[in-house]
Amino acid sequence: MKKELEQVGRRQLIAKAGLALGGVVTLGALQACGSDESPATPPVDTPATGPQVADFPYDQHIAAGFQMDTAPIQEAAYHAYYNGGCCHGSYSALLGHLAQKVGAPFNLLPLDLGKFGAGGIAGYGSICGSLLGGVMIINQIVSNADVRGKMMTELMRWYEGNAFPHFVPDAVDVKEIGKTTLDFSAANIGNLQVVPGSHLCHPSVSGWCAAQKVAATSPDKLARCSRLTADVAGKVAELINTYLANGSFTWTALDATSATCTTCHPASAPAKPVASGMACTSCHPTKTTYPHPL
Amino acid sequence: MKKELEQVGRRQLIAKAGLALGGVVTLGALQACGSDESPATPPVDTPATGPQVADFPYDQHIAAGFQMDTAPIQEAAYHAYYNGGCCHGSYSALLGHLAQKVGAPFNLLPLDLGKFGAGGIAGYGSICGSLLGGVMIINQIVSNADVRGKMMTELMRWYEGNAFPHFVPDAVDVKEIGKTTLDFSAANIGNLQVVPGSHLCHPSVSGWCAAQKVAATSPDKLARCSRLTADVAGKVAELINTYLANGSFTWTALDATSATCTTCHPASAPAKPVASGMACTSCHPTKTTYPHPL
Repeated sequence: MKKELEQVGRRQLIAKAGLALGGVVTLGALQACGSDESPATPPVDTPATGPQVADFPYDQHIAAGFQMDTAPIQEAAYHAYYNGGCCHGSYSALLGHLAQKVGAPFNLLPLDLGKFGAGGIAGYGSICGSLLGGVMIINQIVSNADVRGKMMTELMRWYEGNAFPHFVPDAVDVKEIGKTTLDFSAANIGNLQVVPGSHLCHPSVSGWCAAQKVAATSPDKLARCSRLTADVAGKVAELINTYLANGSFTWTALDATSATCTTCHPASAPAKPVASGMACTSCHPTKTTYPHPL
Repeated sequence: MKKELEQVGRRQLIAKAGLALGGVVTLGALQACGSDESPATPPVDTPATGPQVADFPYDQHIAAGFQMDTAPIQEAAYHAYYNGGCCHGSYSALLGHLAQKVGAPFNLLPLDLGKFGAGGIAGYGSICGSLLGGVMIINQIVSNADVRGKMMTELMRWYEGNAFPHFVPDAVDVKEIGKTTLDFSAANIGNLQVVPGSHLCHPSVSGWCAAQKVAATSPDKLARCSRLTADVAGKVAELINTYLANGSFTWTALDATSATCTTCHPASAPAKPVASGMACTSCHPTKTTYPHPL
């Protein structure tokens, strides 16, 4: 296989990887991002010249004025979810868009890199995979370390406090049709929204499923998480667009209750210091006022 | 800068990236991995031939019988921590070793990719960055999705239940010397070990600092996390070595108490399903027996 891959160009190689590992999904993601248009920079067949993968971060390779198209990215992320999970959904949709619209080095990267992140990394319930996929894209692009960190914090903080899902696809995925018991239509989706209260997959998924009285293995859970993946991918595109337009970023401060916690538990305290940027209250609901249990 | 980078070879480019963004650290990581020896595969100057970054996953490019050298990786991870944090520590040490010993495509990747993961991703307290760096390396290598997921689970589960730190460096980092108040010597390090009970940075760091009565911003915290980073990098190397030797992997099941939780709360239950591979008891200590509070 190695020899065969050496003989094909970059564009074909990415298409082959899509067919082998993600099939309809990854190709679908590319198509949804506008395969009927010529990319701004054609994929290079000889990466000995032009922007390289090691030439990182990649904002230096993005033309002034470039903005990502949020709507096709969301649609691609929703469908990609059904062929590789939440992290693959957001990562491949965002990367596929950049590969088509910007070109190198984004078109030199594997589209399937994010499949490990499904279910909070291999189903472990850690960081929501759609967030991790988005964080990996922000990391690829933003060269200013302070701005980059704040963008990631903003994304995770927005997720904690936002009701999901919002996204309504143009076309329901073929793997979903006829399998859900809940009504995910535009008219009803507002009734299915729950604030996760955490950026972690485990409480986000478990809490939503408990509220809807559906199993975490159900088609309804997949329908929720595929739409959430589109929501997150869209938010990442918006954050990156703001960064590319302004070179900086305004972020949301920690919520007022959690900020009060850090007055007694700053990271700099030798007694019970708290190292965290998360909201405190979702995991520590008995400690929102003082005195509180230890 | 773009034009300048186009004119240098791959080997120089990676060294330049190290100097520009990680300086002594990333170069130190490479040196500690054996810069006095010729790499097994020389870095390629024209990546139009040979293994490419998009040619993923990368176990197909690793020669039969290859094993990683754990000790120099741990030493490199410890020092790299002081120049980019925990995720950079494990990621750059493992990638630097692979770049030197295997060559392409590992030597085509940026060594500084993991800097975003410090402090549980931009200081947010999410997944411990040293774990995330290790997970990203496992993801690069292991093509079998089932084995890959179990290796990641094993790594996170091992971290939850293992007392840290263990590693004792050959040479204490220049940024640490004279700044710690605790005794991290080989004779005393056992007295500083605490089981994090979670794979997340926030409880891992906050719990250790509270036990030692030191601030989360203190040099003692840095000394602990730099050694933990070396411990995790070493574990990742061991896991990969087992995989490369056997093509498969034996993993540790969920602990008995948490396994009991899932009898009432399986992911497939419509009432309060639990989507998680984590230990339950560290975050839900009042729910280890039944009946328990809601």
